[in-house]
Amino acid sequence: MLSIASRLRAISSRVALTSIRPVAQKTAIKSVPIICTRRTYATKEVSYTVDKFPGYVRNENFKKLTAQDVEHFKTIVGENGLIHDNQDDLFAFNTDWMHKFRGKSQLVLKPKTTQQVSDIMKYCNQQKLAVVPQGGNTGLVGGSVPVFDEVVLSLQGMNKIRSFDNVSGILTADAGCVLEVLDNWLGEKGYMMPLDLGAKGSCHIGGNIATNAGGLRLLRYGSLHGTVLGLEVVLPDGTILDNMSTLRKDNTGYDLKQLFIGSEGTIGVITGVSILTPHRSKAVNVALLGLNSFEDVQKAFKQSRVELSEILSGKYKLSFEFWDTNALQMFKKHATPKDVMEKEYPFYVLIETSGSNKDHDDEKLTNYLENMMVDGVAEDGVVAQDETQIRGLWSLREGFTEALGKEPAVYKYDISMPVPKLYECVEDMRQHLRDGGVFGQPDSPVTDVVAYGHVGDGNLHLNIAASRLESRVSALIEPYLFEWVANHQGSISAEHGLGVAKNEFLGYSKSPVMIQMMKTMKNMLDPNGIMNPYKYLPSH
Amino acid sequence: MLSIASRLRAISSRVALTSIRPVAQKTAIKSVPIICTRRTYATKEVSYTVDKFPGYVRNENFKKLTAQDVEHFKTIVGENGLIHDNQDDLFAFNTDWMHKFRGKSQLVLKPKTTQQVSDIMKYCNQQKLAVVPQGGNTGLVGGSVPVFDEVVLSLQGMNKIRSFDNVSGILTADAGCVLEVLDNWLGEKGYMMPLDLGAKGSCHIGGNIATNAGGLRLLRYGSLHGTVLGLEVVLPDGTILDNMSTLRKDNTGYDLKQLFIGSEGTIGVITGVSILTPHRSKAVNVALLGLNSFEDVQKAFKQSRVELSEILSGKYKLSFEFWDTNALQMFKKHATPKDVMEKEYPFYVLIETSGSNKDHDDEKLTNYLENMMVDGVAEDGVVAQDETQIRGLWSLREGFTEALGKEPAVYKYDISMPVPKLYECVEDMRQHLRDGGVFGQPDSPVTDVVAYGHVGDGNLHLNIAASRLESRVSALIEPYLFEWVANHQGSISAEHGLGVAKNEFLGYSKSPVMIQMMKTMKNMLDPNGIMNPYKYLPSH
Repeated sequence: MLSIASRLRAISSRVALTSIRPVAQKTAIKSVPIICTRRTYATKEVSYTVDKFPGYVRNENFKKLTAQDVEHFKTIVGENGLIHDNQDDLFAFNTDWMHKFRGKSQLVLKPKTTQQVSDIMKYCNQQKLAVVPQGGNTGLVGGSVPVFDEVVLSLQGMNKIRSFDNVSGILTADAGCVLEVLDNWLGEKGYMMPLDLGAKGSCHIGGNIATNAGGLRLLRYGSLHGTVLGLEVVLPDGTILDNMSTLRKDNTGYDLKQLFIGSEGTIGVITGVSILTPHRSKAVNVALLGLNSFEDVQKAFKQSRVELSEILSGKYKLSFEFWDTNALQMFKKHATPKDVMEKEYPFYVLIETSGSNKDHDDEKLTNYLENMMVDGVAEDGVVAQDETQIRGLWSLREGFTEALGKEPAVYKYDISMPVPKLYECVEDMRQHLRDGGVFGQPDSPVTDVVAYGHVGDGNLHLNIAASRLESRVSALIEPYLFEWVANHQGSISAEHGLGVAKNEFLGYSKSPVMIQMMKTMKNMLDPNGIMNPYKYLPSH
Repeated sequence: MLSIASRLRAISSRVALTSIRPVAQKTAIKSVPIICTRRTYATKEVSYTVDKFPGYVRNENFKKLTAQDVEHFKTIVGENGLIHDNQDDLFAFNTDWMHKFRGKSQLVLKPKTTQQVSDIMKYCNQQKLAVVPQGGNTGLVGGSVPVFDEVVLSLQGMNKIRSFDNVSGILTADAGCVLEVLDNWLGEKGYMMPLDLGAKGSCHIGGNIATNAGGLRLLRYGSLHGTVLGLEVVLPDGTILDNMSTLRKDNTGYDLKQLFIGSEGTIGVITGVSILTPHRSKAVNVALLGLNSFEDVQKAFKQSRVELSEILSGKYKLSFEFWDTNALQMFKKHATPKDVMEKEYPFYVLIETSGSNKDHDDEKLTNYLENMMVDGVAEDGVVAQDETQIRGLWSLREGFTEALGKEPAVYKYDISMPVPKLYECVEDMRQHLRDGGVFGQPDSPVTDVVAYGHVGDGNLHLNIAASRLESRVSALIEPYLFEWVANHQGSISAEHGLGVAKNEFLGYSKSPVMIQMMKTMKNMLDPNGIMNPYKYLPSH
């Protein structure tokens, strides 16, 4: 990588050298990618959700699966289209990848067509069999795994690209297509998906939409409410709602598809998607800055909107990510990255730019980085020199979730707030846990509080790592954190969704009138309540 | 204006001159804005909607307004907060600006607070008084004026900016704020509204959202489904739904506000808005191209996405507009613009770019325009040299609607389709009208078929000008056009909405299942059907 400091020397005639802090000790870092040796997960006993979170009671209105039901499903999806009673095979569908949630389903169905999904739902609705739609099962809040014995409806068999318009960039595809597969396929045509996230290698586009995944390209390409042009949805009674518009503008009637974006499988199964994809940029730059304070992070962000505006974000993913040194230490604990800077800093910012003219973008980025160092906002910085280095810098940012997954226990929160409050929340939580006697002593259950997120979206991923799960720790965190967030006009779920974990806390983000209207909507579309029960909306 | 041709001479060393078509006759056009002398409208007798479009029957479930009702409303909005029985004052609220629709309301209410709107709706719902919410009354489909004696609920008294966050660019405001007022107010702070349209001087932001106005900045900043962060809505029963989130990311529950975007006042009254506003760009360029065919328009568009991508659109409005020579002639008929090119061409394209670095943008645009001329895609082109010229070029594009308004009669359609089919639709319609014997002869009722639109959005404004209204003309156009559009996977309302004019044709754009679900939604939220009746959804 080329250190900004060394660039500054080369171009020092343009800026007054006296205003630059000493850079003598800084050297250009060579072009070496960050290498991570990944530990394999130890197979661990995963406890059931209902044992871990007491208070769940099975809804006895739901029928218990019978041999006859299984036989009926065989007539729909065939002998090979289901998994029944094989506990080893069922395990992966009953358990989330963080091994935090585990259900007790005895049946997984893998339809291959929208009609099969419709036939399944029609039967389940008639029989009052509860259903959990499941995509790549990469969620973080238990939304895609059963709580009790719900039938798992896996979309993984529906993975075909339906059409692509090379002029408009509009893609239609089955909901079970893997995000990265779509992105690579589009890449060959000069396009890209308008969203990206760490789980791209496994997550399904249908699941992304059902959870309204924000991810890493939101700042530039906007939310899925804007880029999704149409959906095909199977309603709880089996009705196929064909709203697969491929038009950018269509003002005919209520925009019903919007209801399903972020509905987490509670009012229908998304089976098809029409989405607007942007052009892949010709020029991509990625830079990493080291900074001393979150105030500096904010200054760097504000100035980036002035100097980089239209080129912020791009080919790989969004554009203005931050993390604290605790996140870096967590990554280093579980992987062995090469250092990209000589020293460590309390905060890091990763910027990606993309545009149509490499020279222009280089000039804008260099000017911006120079200004940041001259103004004392950034302490150091590196710019990736090729694709490998770009991937290396991003693998750092994308590695935090996996590194945290190797800790014995993690309390994960995904919140959004006005940017100035973002890190105050982290510092406040650290102090709160210290005051509560669970953090900061050698034998404290909480071992670290790690923060990273998307500055541009006001989105913070707050992770409280612990050596063991203890109820006094949970009791200190919740509802304290939710109240803190609500008091600062924030939301308790920025992008992970509500799922099992947070449905009872919806009241912290939404008014009673809103929640009542949501329940009315749910009852209208799913009167038997069979779709993804025990989640999303509060039970009382 | 600086002609591209003359620029090409100045920079001819960069491109092989032999590949450039002869430019000797082209001269640099001086810096003169387009000047329009606007005719004033002749006051005409406007006939009632129910007389012009027979078949409407007043719903007798609705109460007829009594003196007692009026007295009650005075206790809510005060003596000065309503217009009653004064036919002159009521006229403007009963009639759309095109003078195509006219209702018979005897009462206009002008609440000043959300609570007053709530009190009004609560009373109307109890009494079964039908209500038409009205913003700036700039719509084109009769959506904002009554059909019979519905009470008009005007939002013009609710026009306060509530808050603005200078870091995130998030604005909250009353629904009755005029779009241009907001845009100017934001301009002083370095921001701008994410949408713009010709009616900006009169239309309300609440009305823009209720009709999901696309307008001129959609290509870059995306639809209102993405930029609107929160809404405050008064439901038909008077309940205030407070969903005024100021967060870019908030995944807690169904995104109910989306239902109200584009709902045309049929399920609630939007009273407050939270919207994400982009930075105003430092550099803005506007260019006009003359082209020989719609195929060339498409080529120019495709290449602009490669060479200009991130800077397409900006400060004033979107970016890639086209019109045909018929639109230009219509404009010239009613105004006296200075010619900006020496010759006339069958097609024109107006491009606006905006970005953070003027030099970069100039270079990108110049390269693009050179390539277009060298490749023979464009025949001529001019680039605006200052703000006055920028406004001059835009006033051309924005003047078509007004010019058409001065014709004796116009059949207006706003459709969207895959781009390659856009102009085929226009040519087909001309031929169809000729074949039908209503166009092309000296005494034909149809005098011209004029087309312009947003290429990037696949959105066409098709205007059929006529010397008089004749039923055989209407019968030739509808449902022929709707069928043509449906056969080409288009939508019969890209951005104007359904209103009175098109609700019965919704079936051409949406499936019976979709329409049924819309009706269920409407019945759930407005069981008495008092909100903006006789419109939007088909009656049968």
